[in-house]
Amino acid sequence: VSGNGTVDAVRWKGGEDGFLELIDQTLLPQETVVLALRDPEAVRDAICRLAVRGAPAIGVAAAFGLWLGIREGPDDPAALDGLLARVEARLASARPTAANLRWALRQVAGAAGRDGPVKARKSAVFAAARKLLEDDVRACERMAAAGAALLRDGARVLTYCNTGALAAAGPGTALAVVFEAQRSGKRMSVVACETRPLLQGARLTMWELMRAGIDATLICDNTAAAAMRRGIDHVLVGADRIARNGDTANKIGTYALALLAKAHGIPFHVVAPRSTFDLGLASGDGIPIEERAASEITEIAGRRLAPAGAKVWAPAFDVTPAALISGIVTDAGIISPVDESRVAAVVRG
Amino acid sequence: VSGNGTVDAVRWKGGEDGFLELIDQTLLPQETVVLALRDPEAVRDAICRLAVRGAPAIGVAAAFGLWLGIREGPDDPAALDGLLARVEARLASARPTAANLRWALRQVAGAAGRDGPVKARKSAVFAAARKLLEDDVRACERMAAAGAALLRDGARVLTYCNTGALAAAGPGTALAVVFEAQRSGKRMSVVACETRPLLQGARLTMWELMRAGIDATLICDNTAAAAMRRGIDHVLVGADRIARNGDTANKIGTYALALLAKAHGIPFHVVAPRSTFDLGLASGDGIPIEERAASEITEIAGRRLAPAGAKVWAPAFDVTPAALISGIVTDAGIISPVDESRVAAVVRG
Repeated sequence: VSGNGTVDAVRWKGGEDGFLELIDQTLLPQETVVLALRDPEAVRDAICRLAVRGAPAIGVAAAFGLWLGIREGPDDPAALDGLLARVEARLASARPTAANLRWALRQVAGAAGRDGPVKARKSAVFAAARKLLEDDVRACERMAAAGAALLRDGARVLTYCNTGALAAAGPGTALAVVFEAQRSGKRMSVVACETRPLLQGARLTMWELMRAGIDATLICDNTAAAAMRRGIDHVLVGADRIARNGDTANKIGTYALALLAKAHGIPFHVVAPRSTFDLGLASGDGIPIEERAASEITEIAGRRLAPAGAKVWAPAFDVTPAALISGIVTDAGIISPVDESRVAAVVRG
Repeated sequence: VSGNGTVDAVRWKGGEDGFLELIDQTLLPQETVVLALRDPEAVRDAICRLAVRGAPAIGVAAAFGLWLGIREGPDDPAALDGLLARVEARLASARPTAANLRWALRQVAGAAGRDGPVKARKSAVFAAARKLLEDDVRACERMAAAGAALLRDGARVLTYCNTGALAAAGPGTALAVVFEAQRSGKRMSVVACETRPLLQGARLTMWELMRAGIDATLICDNTAAAAMRRGIDHVLVGADRIARNGDTANKIGTYALALLAKAHGIPFHVVAPRSTFDLGLASGDGIPIEERAASEITEIAGRRLAPAGAKVWAPAFDVTPAALISGIVTDAGIISPVDESRVAAVVRG
């Protein structure tokens, strides 16, 4: 955690023999516990239990998880190929929805190539993970600059879940846009939805906003429509996977916010790097939606709230149709209006 | 608590020298604690802290609270008038939004009249409170019958907060419609929104539905839009105050559900007795909206979740414009479409 109002959600300490550091986000804001991870199963577990979350951050964490899984592997080319495939598959299975997880693993595993000495191929994996982290920081900065231009001085922004420095290696996605606008001299006020069941908005977004000295108001998710009626100028959210037509999977509840923004005539922007796009999917119908354990909803802080045996539907994400999205702010420019040709133009470059 | 799947949220035990019994709903479903109340301040406190909640139930509780506040008052006509006014005002100030609270107090205080022996005037107050409770039971039954006719066999209903037997002296409002439809042989399935921050849906509605053997699924409030997209046939909610044009104040989040139902082409019905209407208000703009303590959102079960000092906006209710309401099911028939003349025709009778 650095002193300038941003945090390092995920970072690598040292060289090839170093380790991965993550803030355990399940304990924030009450406790700041930094985890030092040295094996891929620990990284996978951290992703599964949301100690690290946010599509870009889990991509970066998994990239180093892959390195941790191969660095002590045998010096045999065939064995390296098998190990890479096994560790990649194991890490990719941690969570099904975020595109960045699979994308990052593919990038880093692919860097090993097929030829050359095993030691050099391994080193290429480490270098690729490092580059992926650095690229994520730059992508965040580019999205922040592009998005901040959309916001006027005094803008009232409604946001969801956590999309700040805790969700990426850099300053984040949607929340980084707010940070950048404020840094450039525009006064921002932010309404943060608490984001049930795991309260990333209440716990993480409020913590980041308060540290950054930005005017922030916490509401329950069900209060978003009333807040919009009272006065919201922009809705800014992140994304976990975007299909090639622009349909966007993000934290459960995002689809409702998009509908409510439309009903109130409020622009609704998604902020996501190109690594969040899955151009292999024609539409959001093909995006796998993770379902979480019922206990995440029926219990809070270990205390049961709903009746024992209550049936629960707990999707972690929903899909917002492209038609409800005013624009997608990427690290290669803004896609607006959102359709397949414009997505292709920006993402393929 | 009776054995037939319904509960007595509020009842009077004994004659004029009896006491008010309430289930402490803050402890459900983990504990069923029945409170025996013998003074008006205890009734007011129970209303303030939501030990009893639901617009009809707090009306009935307040009616008996008024009786408790005057039954031992001096045998002097002027003193009785002063006492009635003071106790009525004190109880009316417990919560600002629900129309039923003020309406019930006016009914019961008015029953004392202006003439006659003090003892008889007091007894008239007690009789009026009793009648109010009995009328509420009948009103619930009439709403249930009228509303159940709207539901086909196999209907999938989305509901909000708690509007069952815990919210009234009788079987409830919106949830009583589901109970009656199921009783009449139509299979119902219900999606219950948990209803942050106090989780009346998760704690109370799920408890009532599971006791009644009705297929029930709990969701976070932010999942309502995704549930509607998957398949919901009706949205049924209660009300705390309805203006004469049909604008309806109900639990915060209801306005969002009405907008989301419209976007999905799903009928949205309010179920409320005539005592919930405030014909003195031209529109919902005049309805006072209670704001609750920030700690109800930032803490759960005594554990702080948001950062210390987080600013919170915690309205307990919002207003759904009449134009978003398919119909209002009352104890005197269904108002549909919802407009001032139809409201007047049904409520004035």
